[in-house]
Amino acid sequence: MENKFTFAKEIVREAGEYILQHMKEDLHVERKSSPTDLVTKLDKEVQDLLIKKIRSRYPNDLFCAEEGCMRAAVGQGSVWIIDPIDGTNNFVAQGEDFAVMLAYFEDGIGKFGIIYDVMKGDCYHGGGDFPPCRNDEPLPLFKKRPLREFLVAGNSGMLATNEWGLADLGNAALGTRVYGSAAISFAKVLSGRLLTYITYLQPWDYAAASILGESLGYKVFTIAGEEVDFQTRQAVMMVPVEMKDEIQSYIYERK
Amino acid sequence: MENKFTFAKEIVREAGEYILQHMKEDLHVERKSSPTDLVTKLDKEVQDLLIKKIRSRYPNDLFCAEEGCMRAAVGQGSVWIIDPIDGTNNFVAQGEDFAVMLAYFEDGIGKFGIIYDVMKGDCYHGGGDFPPCRNDEPLPLFKKRPLREFLVAGNSGMLATNEWGLADLGNAALGTRVYGSAAISFAKVLSGRLLTYITYLQPWDYAAASILGESLGYKVFTIAGEEVDFQTRQAVMMVPVEMKDEIQSYIYERK
Repeated sequence: MENKFTFAKEIVREAGEYILQHMKEDLHVERKSSPTDLVTKLDKEVQDLLIKKIRSRYPNDLFCAEEGCMRAAVGQGSVWIIDPIDGTNNFVAQGEDFAVMLAYFEDGIGKFGIIYDVMKGDCYHGGGDFPPCRNDEPLPLFKKRPLREFLVAGNSGMLATNEWGLADLGNAALGTRVYGSAAISFAKVLSGRLLTYITYLQPWDYAAASILGESLGYKVFTIAGEEVDFQTRQAVMMVPVEMKDEIQSYIYERK
Repeated sequence: MENKFTFAKEIVREAGEYILQHMKEDLHVERKSSPTDLVTKLDKEVQDLLIKKIRSRYPNDLFCAEEGCMRAAVGQGSVWIIDPIDGTNNFVAQGEDFAVMLAYFEDGIGKFGIIYDVMKGDCYHGGGDFPPCRNDEPLPLFKKRPLREFLVAGNSGMLATNEWGLADLGNAALGTRVYGSAAISFAKVLSGRLLTYITYLQPWDYAAASILGESLGYKVFTIAGEEVDFQTRQAVMMVPVEMKDEIQSYIYERK
């Protein structure tokens, strides 16, 4: 597994390099499901590049990836979950606060996750068989404090409608932040800078963070507090297991 | 003025160094007006340090500063406006996304502004008599695009209640972000990464950005589109003058 992990970190760094080299070109921005659901030529090129490299080294491995229609289930076999550019709107409008994400599963067991904040040069890697680190520094274990001392994050739509009680949770906490990228938000949870991140996500948005977080005391659940399915878009929350009940006293099903 | 500007940049860098040296100590966090309105011993120490340095060099200058009760009006004399640590909640809970801010006025005319993002090491400086730069790079002039292509930012409370129409504006734009610091949000406007930043602010929160923005095509107005008073807490917006009317078609008085 060590070799596969080293290989994965290498290709994610290479993907970041590729983005840095090409991000000043015309990005060919297109809209997917809505006027604010953007995709660029780089999302597609970076995904192709990652899949090509993995396939040439591990020809029998399977993929679940954001762009296109590769949707392997994680339960069986060797499965890579890929989000080539998470935070595409930030990427297009700001040129920062986006990340490359990769997660690797064997027969349903998460072996490692990688979140690479390209502009900061911060690579979050590990979990599963490896210690979770940011670059060469071990990430901190979750440490409980009163809810009032923590910041929380979510998406602006949920905040604006208090969906699932996100605004209530933010009012009971120190405040609410909206960063516009699952990767960037999860990286802040993993760094101890946010208590929780709550939003609607696809498997490629939470797979890496979910593996990285487990040995630090966090877990990704559905809003209802159940296991995520790694298959469909769900309302999810990454929470410290130790404070799940307290968070759930604000966050619950009440669409 | 060149000397005063150089001096100001130096003492802001020194303030940043002071914060970096002491931020791992016990911060003696206290609450001011509410459970989420935090102040630390470093807010006070950094403000004292800046004022001491300015006073020893310019003994007749006046001050308007966040901590304590120095509240000089900008209209007359040589006035320094100081926010020692903007984004104190981020500083306490995240150790990043906070900034030192300094603005300098002579008889009501803004001469220069400085925003120093301490953890990124990014210093935004200039305006008034000087070209606005991030470190050594000139900041970009505002370039008009369709509203749908811009991100906007505000505070989570206004977003959660759609106060002044912030949520409506975000829905018409590419999305809404909440960073929890005026300095960090203004820095993103000045970098072309946000169209506008809308929230309740005190003079020390917007003075530096207001001076920096004017030669780039931005201006800080009240929500009602009037001049800010540099005296009281007001609902304000920093907008590109060229898109003020379009933004105001979403943002208006309707408390």
